[in-house]
Amino acid sequence: MKQFELQHSFGIDSLVLTDALDPRPGYGQVLLRILAVSLNYRDLMMVRGQYNPRLRLPCIPCSDGVGEVVAVGEGVGRVKVGDRVAGTFFQEWIEGDLDEQKARSALGGGGAGMLTEYVVLNEAGVVHVPAHLTDEEAATLPCAAVTAWNALTVHNRVQPGDTVLIQGTGGVSVFALQFARLAGARVIATSSSERKLARVAAMGAAAGINYHTDPKWDARVLELTEGRGVDHVVEVGGAGTLAHSLRAVRMGGQVSLIGVLTGGTGEVNPLPVLMKQIRLQGIYVGSRAMFEAMNAAIALHQLRPVVDRVFPFAEAPDALRYMESAAHFGKIVIRVAA
Amino acid sequence: MKQFELQHSFGIDSLVLTDALDPRPGYGQVLLRILAVSLNYRDLMMVRGQYNPRLRLPCIPCSDGVGEVVAVGEGVGRVKVGDRVAGTFFQEWIEGDLDEQKARSALGGGGAGMLTEYVVLNEAGVVHVPAHLTDEEAATLPCAAVTAWNALTVHNRVQPGDTVLIQGTGGVSVFALQFARLAGARVIATSSSERKLARVAAMGAAAGINYHTDPKWDARVLELTEGRGVDHVVEVGGAGTLAHSLRAVRMGGQVSLIGVLTGGTGEVNPLPVLMKQIRLQGIYVGSRAMFEAMNAAIALHQLRPVVDRVFPFAEAPDALRYMESAAHFGKIVIRVAA
Amino acid sequence: MKQFELQHSFGIDSLVLTDALDPRPGYGQVLLRILAVSLNYRDLMMVRGQYNPRLRLPCIPCSDGVGEVVAVGEGVGRVKVGDRVAGTFFQEWIEGDLDEQKARSALGGGGAGMLTEYVVLNEAGVVHVPAHLTDEEAATLPCAAVTAWNALTVHNRVQPGDTVLIQGTGGVSVFALQFARLAGARVIATSSSERKLARVAAMGAAAGINYHTDPKWDARVLELTEGRGVDHVVEVGGAGTLAHSLRAVRMGGQVSLIGVLTGGTGEVNPLPVLMKQIRLQGIYVGSRAMFEAMNAAIALHQLRPVVDRVFPFAEAPDALRYMESAAHFGKIVIRVAA
Amino acid sequence: MKQFELQHSFGIDSLVLTDALDPRPGYGQVLLRILAVSLNYRDLMMVRGQYNPRLRLPCIPCSDGVGEVVAVGEGVGRVKVGDRVAGTFFQEWIEGDLDEQKARSALGGGGAGMLTEYVVLNEAGVVHVPAHLTDEEAATLPCAAVTAWNALTVHNRVQPGDTVLIQGTGGVSVFALQFARLAGARVIATSSSERKLARVAAMGAAAGINYHTDPKWDARVLELTEGRGVDHVVEVGGAGTLAHSLRAVRMGGQVSLIGVLTGGTGEVNPLPVLMKQIRLQGIYVGSRAMFEAMNAAIALHQLRPVVDRVFPFAEAPDALRYMESAAHFGKIVIRVAA
Repeated sequence: MKQFELQHSFGIDSLVLTDALDPRPGYGQVLLRILAVSLNYRDLMMVRGQYNPRLRLPCIPCSDGVGEVVAVGEGVGRVKVGDRVAGTFFQEWIEGDLDEQKARSALGGGGAGMLTEYVVLNEAGVVHVPAHLTDEEAATLPCAAVTAWNALTVHNRVQPGDTVLIQGTGGVSVFALQFARLAGARVIATSSSERKLARVAAMGAAAGINYHTDPKWDARVLELTEGRGVDHVVEVGGAGTLAHSLRAVRMGGQVSLIGVLTGGTGEVNPLPVLMKQIRLQGIYVGSRAMFEAMNAAIALHQLRPVVDRVFPFAEAPDALRYMESAAHFGKIVIRVAA
Repeated sequence: MKQFELQHSFGIDSLVLTDALDPRPGYGQVLLRILAVSLNYRDLMMVRGQYNPRLRLPCIPCSDGVGEVVAVGEGVGRVKVGDRVAGTFFQEWIEGDLDEQKARSALGGGGAGMLTEYVVLNEAGVVHVPAHLTDEEAATLPCAAVTAWNALTVHNRVQPGDTVLIQGTGGVSVFALQFARLAGARVIATSSSERKLARVAAMGAAAGINYHTDPKWDARVLELTEGRGVDHVVEVGGAGTLAHSLRAVRMGGQVSLIGVLTGGTGEVNPLPVLMKQIRLQGIYVGSRAMFEAMNAAIALHQLRPVVDRVFPFAEAPDALRYMESAAHFGKIVIRVAA
Repeated sequence: MKQFELQHSFGIDSLVLTDALDPRPGYGQVLLRILAVSLNYRDLMMVRGQYNPRLRLPCIPCSDGVGEVVAVGEGVGRVKVGDRVAGTFFQEWIEGDLDEQKARSALGGGGAGMLTEYVVLNEAGVVHVPAHLTDEEAATLPCAAVTAWNALTVHNRVQPGDTVLIQGTGGVSVFALQFARLAGARVIATSSSERKLARVAAMGAAAGINYHTDPKWDARVLELTEGRGVDHVVEVGGAGTLAHSLRAVRMGGQVSLIGVLTGGTGEVNPLPVLMKQIRLQGIYVGSRAMFEAMNAAIALHQLRPVVDRVFPFAEAPDALRYMESAAHFGKIVIRVAA
Repeated sequence: MKQFELQHSFGIDSLVLTDALDPRPGYGQVLLRILAVSLNYRDLMMVRGQYNPRLRLPCIPCSDGVGEVVAVGEGVGRVKVGDRVAGTFFQEWIEGDLDEQKARSALGGGGAGMLTEYVVLNEAGVVHVPAHLTDEEAATLPCAAVTAWNALTVHNRVQPGDTVLIQGTGGVSVFALQFARLAGARVIATSSSERKLARVAAMGAAAGINYHTDPKWDARVLELTEGRGVDHVVEVGGAGTLAHSLRAVRMGGQVSLIGVLTGGTGEVNPLPVLMKQIRLQGIYVGSRAMFEAMNAAIALHQLRPVVDRVFPFAEAPDALRYMESAAHFGKIVIRVAA
């Protein structure tokens, strides 16, 4: 089988397509033939060597993949050969609260990753995906969609009539728009592109703010909410945008802190958190139970993830370069199986 | 001014249209010119003398009304003359938890009621109603809509993908259908009428069960949920249907206990509550804060309450008789102001 | 090895001490040498054939046991040989919500049980027990203590200053007293015995009510709470006492429905649940995560379970007969290993 | 009557004891004869002109006071002449969530304050204080105690066995120690003084860390929690200590952000909030309902606030200077009525 590997150095150019022995499932394990893989910004950081300073090579990138079960080990009961499943981001976070051990089980952060033709996972680490989705659509779910779901429905569940602010049009933000709409919320979106704002409007966003032409976008948010602020911010920009978000959220509201897009080095003054009794909630993907609940909602509403572009397996490095360009709207996918 | 009064005895036939002096607002109070009143089953029970054995005559029936503020007392700041507002069911339940004192402040349960041309309320006991609603639609909100909102969004908040069971097509149940849909849930409805089931289907219910032709409707619910049961039952039937509901709800699910339609004398075996770790949550209307949050959702989605029929003020007794017939779908309203 | 078995018929007299081959742990499994077993009322019902009409013989009774790990299968990492562990009541309820599959994994409800010298369990189904406890004390935890913990700290967490009502002095009630006190609550206890009331007072109960001399004990509870009612009832009596509990709890309070001591056939009028906006929460033991959190609290406070009496393994039937007498205060234990 | 006033400029030296007319209670208001006032760091900031740049003089400092009701206006029913009550920090935050309007009703932040012999408040803005407390003890409750209560029992309620970190020995931290102990938690305290650490140990703290001799105190916290981190940090140091707290809290834990002691200008890197799925919860005192629940707990446990030192009314400026010295342990109080 073929797999993409970082062998001796980091960087997109260092990704090598190598041959490996086909893996075999042990007790309680399943062998997946990967159908499609989706990219997250974390994958790009990992490939560039920016994600985890302690990560050692070689490693296989990517956390998100959907595959067909082609073999099962002894003792497997949750899935069977022929099932189409996605791997869970945290292989050992089944349900309940996140802890250190579960956190160490993330795919694509070193060692095992999904940018390969075949992978072996524990049966506990896979979930069936909604039948109406294409493989490419299903591959977008494990990280970005579960993250958005966790932010909006687990911690401080959104209710009909709430106002939710999303930032930009990356994977998490577009899912957050879709889920917030399913839950009956009003969505305000920011972007630097009028074209992208038109697309989120078409998807149901009530208002869009161009932060390029309107850099004090938090003031505009207050105008749009009669001075009150939004109930919930899905914050994907890190320290660079957090200060704005703390002004844009209402007293007693929640900011779900997700992304690191604008870099991990910034700092923010925490004073508004106190004076407005804000809840700043870190969100780190989610559990298998959240994934399954989300799938039920996706299936009920026949919701379709937004796939920006699909690259063939051999062009995976180009897919990462495309992500670097930040031109995408929604998810970038790599088709693996022919 | 005119008002309907029970003077010496209970019963619809005992309702008398009497004259009274126009009331005046004191400190912190507002005078409402009532525009429309809606009926709840509780009003019927109250008029019949079945609601509260300690209730003393004379009294004015009805809890739900919308009116125009025509005068305000000293110290009033929340509303102004000309505003269109509804009275809150519990005049003193502003927010937080219900307690005995707040519970005693219910309108229409003895003493003050809304079936009158003018009423004085504390300014804290009124809320602005969504602008897109007619007076008749707005009059349906205080009891039935707030009850459904409390059940679905406050205690054990419904999330997208959940399945909610509603019973019949009375006021609370139809609002529960609408709110559950807003929140992204799947709704299963029961009714004894195919015509009514067709209407709930048109409003978005995924499935209907005719409990007349299918008296073991809980078995049918299990079929419709792959043997699992629903996440949430909005139980309006009392002891008569509760035993079915406890079978129809999933392990760990919630039954919101609301109504007393099938009478208050029945009993139920609590064993399933234990063995399925069910939450049986009593719901007693809700607070002003819930009312206001609900109004935000109603306004955002331009949701319209279902008004079955409107009676003129003089025919209020006929409206109550119509409620007795159980032929309605949604709410029965009385137009008060010309 | 020896084990107690119901072979052909139910009843304490039908319990037979039989020989069996020593079991061996498979993949992910551990072999426990049982040190001590504790009894729950459920064990008595099971032995009498009253617990589950579908249960087939033969079976080994008892859910609660603590043992020493004497062998581990391949792939075991959570525990090692020499560890002292308890089996979890539900072998597959690790964390998160209860579901049908997890519910079917209960020990001692048919098939595998703990009244044996050796047992094989999945490593996921055991927890380390606090070091300061004797084997007999540790054996009391899996069902009764976890149930009390779940009622008081998971669903509607008790806070300092709350008032909690406990009923009688069985295992769950005594643990509930201890945990409620740890959490800063005031405890009111009922019992038919002045001697037992003196013991709960010595353990920190603020007030005791003899329901034998004071059958309208709910009225006495109202007196003790200035007419308000308690915040929380740990209801172990079933339909027989539930009607009283619904009167004794405050508006908006919680009744945790646990036991079936007074039989499963009674019925209760659900009307007060509605009119007082009560939460009636079924409690069915709890997860491994709850067990572990409870152990942390027990260890921190060096809390000691109350062991009423210890029987030798050979006299297990006498232990069950003693439970029938209802003379105990706290837990009845059987010492298994010499 | 006499009152302390900032008339033309900020600064402790600018505090002037002035004469004013005795106020009279209007509709729904009560007149309090102030018995004792306690100081919070916020009062010091306010007097120095550091609290709110928009604050205009003249104003009366201090939010916390307890007094005797000496007259009541028309319509008053919650309290009567002779009652001993405290003013609530936010005069209009009765219950439910904080909002902008409620936030503007804080005492001592401009305009009305408690450093006076008599004050008029709305009856809704006072609470009865526990009878076993001295006036000086009761005066410590409105801000610091309610803040600690809100952090530990309302947002992410502490449960028995949890570990809570407190910082220093100011008013909030000492109350947090007391409430965490009531709720069954283990407390780790930091201080720069061995003498103060000995005092918190005597009050039940399980461990103390001298951050003067051990500036990397978060590493010491990890050692004390077997590498896991604490469940809850009551963060009173602001940006200066928050980075340490984010390292000291466990994955999935909560940091309650309260104080601004180390200044409002610092910044913090929010990345750990995300990677550890931390909840950073701003806490801004609390509601009257929280105050009342706290009083029930204080009364039940006969808990006594720690009063460091009591100054006579005339020496109020010295009390503020003493607070500046940071030598105190617990609360500084000013006796007002003779």
